[in-house]
Amino acid sequence: MLEKIKTVSDLKQLEVKQLPQLCAELRQKLIDDVMQSGGHLASNLGVVELTVALHYVFDERDKIVWDVGHQSYVHKILTQRGENFSSLRQKGGLSGFPDCEESESDAFNTGHAGTAISAALGIASARDALGLDYNVVAVVGDGSMTCGLTYEALNNVKDTKMLIVLNDNNMSIGDNVGTATLNLSKLRVGKYDRNKERLKKFLLKIPLVGKPSYKFLRWCKRRLKSHFVRNSYFDNFDVKYIGIVDGNEVKDLVYYLNKIKNNVSKPTVLHIATKKGKGYLPAEKDPEYYHSVPRGGVQSDKLESAAVVGDTLCRLAQERSDIVAISAAMTTATGLGTFKERFPQRCYDVGIAEEHAVTFAAGLAKGGMRPFVAIYSTFLQRSYDCILHDVALQNLPVTLLIDRAGFVGEDGQTHQGLFDLSYLSHIPNLQIWTPSSYNQLSQMICRSVSVDGPVAIRYGRTLDSESRDFTMHWDIVKQGGSARRLCVLCVGAKMLNIGLSASENIDSVEVVGVTTVKPLDEEYLNGVDCNVITLEENVVYGGFGSLLTMHFAQNRGITVRNLGVDDTYIKHATVDEQIHQSGLDVDSVRAVIEKML
Amino acid sequence: MLEKIKTVSDLKQLEVKQLPQLCAELRQKLIDDVMQSGGHLASNLGVVELTVALHYVFDERDKIVWDVGHQSYVHKILTQRGENFSSLRQKGGLSGFPDCEESESDAFNTGHAGTAISAALGIASARDALGLDYNVVAVVGDGSMTCGLTYEALNNVKDTKMLIVLNDNNMSIGDNVGTATLNLSKLRVGKYDRNKERLKKFLLKIPLVGKPSYKFLRWCKRRLKSHFVRNSYFDNFDVKYIGIVDGNEVKDLVYYLNKIKNNVSKPTVLHIATKKGKGYLPAEKDPEYYHSVPRGGVQSDKLESAAVVGDTLCRLAQERSDIVAISAAMTTATGLGTFKERFPQRCYDVGIAEEHAVTFAAGLAKGGMRPFVAIYSTFLQRSYDCILHDVALQNLPVTLLIDRAGFVGEDGQTHQGLFDLSYLSHIPNLQIWTPSSYNQLSQMICRSVSVDGPVAIRYGRTLDSESRDFTMHWDIVKQGGSARRLCVLCVGAKMLNIGLSASENIDSVEVVGVTTVKPLDEEYLNGVDCNVITLEENVVYGGFGSLLTMHFAQNRGITVRNLGVDDTYIKHATVDEQIHQSGLDVDSVRAVIEKML
Repeated sequence: MLEKIKTVSDLKQLEVKQLPQLCAELRQKLIDDVMQSGGHLASNLGVVELTVALHYVFDERDKIVWDVGHQSYVHKILTQRGENFSSLRQKGGLSGFPDCEESESDAFNTGHAGTAISAALGIASARDALGLDYNVVAVVGDGSMTCGLTYEALNNVKDTKMLIVLNDNNMSIGDNVGTATLNLSKLRVGKYDRNKERLKKFLLKIPLVGKPSYKFLRWCKRRLKSHFVRNSYFDNFDVKYIGIVDGNEVKDLVYYLNKIKNNVSKPTVLHIATKKGKGYLPAEKDPEYYHSVPRGGVQSDKLESAAVVGDTLCRLAQERSDIVAISAAMTTATGLGTFKERFPQRCYDVGIAEEHAVTFAAGLAKGGMRPFVAIYSTFLQRSYDCILHDVALQNLPVTLLIDRAGFVGEDGQTHQGLFDLSYLSHIPNLQIWTPSSYNQLSQMICRSVSVDGPVAIRYGRTLDSESRDFTMHWDIVKQGGSARRLCVLCVGAKMLNIGLSASENIDSVEVVGVTTVKPLDEEYLNGVDCNVITLEENVVYGGFGSLLTMHFAQNRGITVRNLGVDDTYIKHATVDEQIHQSGLDVDSVRAVIEKML
Repeated sequence: MLEKIKTVSDLKQLEVKQLPQLCAELRQKLIDDVMQSGGHLASNLGVVELTVALHYVFDERDKIVWDVGHQSYVHKILTQRGENFSSLRQKGGLSGFPDCEESESDAFNTGHAGTAISAALGIASARDALGLDYNVVAVVGDGSMTCGLTYEALNNVKDTKMLIVLNDNNMSIGDNVGTATLNLSKLRVGKYDRNKERLKKFLLKIPLVGKPSYKFLRWCKRRLKSHFVRNSYFDNFDVKYIGIVDGNEVKDLVYYLNKIKNNVSKPTVLHIATKKGKGYLPAEKDPEYYHSVPRGGVQSDKLESAAVVGDTLCRLAQERSDIVAISAAMTTATGLGTFKERFPQRCYDVGIAEEHAVTFAAGLAKGGMRPFVAIYSTFLQRSYDCILHDVALQNLPVTLLIDRAGFVGEDGQTHQGLFDLSYLSHIPNLQIWTPSSYNQLSQMICRSVSVDGPVAIRYGRTLDSESRDFTMHWDIVKQGGSARRLCVLCVGAKMLNIGLSASENIDSVEVVGVTTVKPLDEEYLNGVDCNVITLEENVVYGGFGSLLTMHFAQNRGITVRNLGVDDTYIKHATVDEQIHQSGLDVDSVRAVIEKML
């Protein structure tokens, strides 16, 4: 059946009773294709029925905003991108997130949690201002309910007609936290789910009257539910609340969505319960593992920075009772899993609440603890003001552990860690350390606790296994010697290796691992009497290169060439392709080196 | 009486019945001193009783975190800073905000709204981890309840013993907005306030039995209230709720705070109703006007950038129906007051919710409107990720109107607009324009709507009245001519005037008003064949100077000297003092000019 469904118009030709079959086929396509291409599997398996029902009920001119956006695969398949679906997350292929450049069916680019209600409210307000009458739908996971931006938007949603689908799978990427979401779950795991199944089975077994009774009961339930169930959380925002509906029952969803589409004039929350990984047993059992599947479907067991973070923090915490760690809904992904197991009282998961994570850490530090905050580079962007205003201004001893710095490859432009050096390097009091090897990372974590102020440690998913030590002096990996004619200063493992390869066999080039972006290694720089190239996985403006250029501009007339990411966003591709595209690959760097000698 | 109260210990010697007298004296001191020194008057008048009661009941080792912090004056007077209080907000004197460097009685530095619960939860968690037993109190205005960070923190507060005093004066700086806060007000302005006064008056008039009856009723009310009143909003966070208590009745406050201090083991919200400006009639009548009083007490009627913003937007909105404006709880202060009056349907006040303000604007733009977001430079720091990820990534036509850029003087380090060029200049697609005169500001606002992408317009509270036109080419205010030996490139009105004064009578110096920080004026720069000085009210790293230095470093060997704020935070003083301290005053700049010629 899926073969014939290329567009939303095709979908609308189907009868409601055909939809479960379509869902089954979509689910199979997801499993087959995503296990090959890699991507977000569990969340997409959970929203097959929701996506089908939304497009079946709503019109093409209606706008659907997908919060976070990694659950938009089925939407892409149904909006003319099914044939191209195997190109997912590859250079030039489909993005793994909504992308307005890719299709007019994508209403808003998303990637970070919590933006959907805010953006959808903007779209709906514009619709009202222009006297138009399309529908606006925000699809939001329960994880995003822990996010301040979601709350700020909900607080303004009153009186504007829009639908918020709360897709409740009782998870963020990891487990859900927070009291407001616990209250959601209380409703969810109540008697409803269990009893429904029992009653259904019981009634369907009774011949003749059983099936009609079940249908009648379902009819009653639907009507009752949509009139009488209230939710104390959403009541605060003056929105109409309908729930909880089984979000993996496509016919139920079609029923409720039709009802809402035709009758509702105020903002409405449709609260649905879905199962992450639905229909693929391994993913149902371990949705966190299947949250993001690598290309080919096999998770690598190579050492990753996150593991080093976990091990080092455990060691440190054994020695010092003041060590605590904070994650924003990504305890396992950031390496804090083992730490949490061993020191449950000293590990805080605050939900998708990066702002609170950092300001909370500032409070912990003020109260005498030594906090580590582990957040991916791209998500830490949310905490900019908290780092500057709550941590650094008071010079509080907090260590930021910034994973996924630099190119992230397939996740593309909304997830690149290419801005952190720029948004951190101008913050007073904050040191920025950048390891190139696992043991430097480990040494930095240990050393940071002896700094009486904030430290940001910034690293990619993997580093070098070579044993390179960390001191506050840069790491001269290849000596230029007395004939030195050029210094190549490299931030992070990937750039260091490219710097080394690009200057292979050129004796006069010195290659340096920049272990501290801030402070600069003044002692090393004072000895520099030749041209300099900086290499960093970061936008060129405001990053390491800019600090260095200013250092020389204010000192001596040495020519500095800054290599980094041009002033642009970088789309999905492999990391190598992204490096090449940015002129940071070995050949491009070699060409610059030769020119500057 | 106040004469004798130098410390909290002195305060604790008083009997409860003496406290109203103390409050009256404190109120008088506030009015006398703040009308002289300038500062936040209305909010401090509102919390006199609360502050006295908190210090009367709690111990010195207990920690009070003041959200926003501009309401901490009475706290300062009671914690050994009364004698020095006339130095408020002056260089070297008391800060207008809590400052841990100033006193150990200040538990946490604040300045931006919404940080208190998050930080207090951190302090309380540290206390529990270390097995200590002091109390932690967060004092939060109802305006901060619209802020996402407050929500993120509340969502994690469960199980940690702390007191949140919700100081409900039914205002942000301007009027309050948002549904959650409307629900707070519904409670507040209910029958309670009105009836209480009537009943009290009635009972007290009855001889003999009247007074005892009133006391008995008050006794009943207190007990009933703390046991039975519930609040559906706070119920979601599993905190104990007590309210609403009259926050300008010091004896009532002492009663409830004692009860909470001695008996409560879980997080508790004490919801109090206070009157902003209480006890000073002009401030009660117009608390927004008396929110921040200038030195000497007289508001200047000089033209300000905000007025130009308002007028220009009104003109523009008359021509184009797609113009909308968004403020984050500061409609009047950002100049949108007149716009709101004339186009109420096209002006959105989203509350203290800077993140939502920007992402909402992105949605509006996506829906076909042309939004302007007016937020002070320091508060826009909260929106960094929203600008980068929701507006600029999609290249959406949104104009950011960034007032209070540069030095802000007396408000000090938490309110400086000294980071915006650094946190904006590395964001792809975003143009940054910097007017030096009112008519440039006006022209920029008009011109920005013809840009098919985001524009940030960044300006100080006041600009020059001279008529200087805006084009996309920099404004050569003083020609260096054929003998040109140095270019001084100045960002904003203040720096331009300093550049002009510092190079007075030196013919060979060219002085330029930098109207676009991004893009740079390549045409002008291509013609530069001499040394360059950049002058900006911004931290040196990542700002205009860094863009320019990189431009030359990647082109020709011209020496560029970047003048700006060194890598540090700048405390309160007058703007002139702050400029001098940063080496940006005429004499310092002149010295650099002479050295570089």
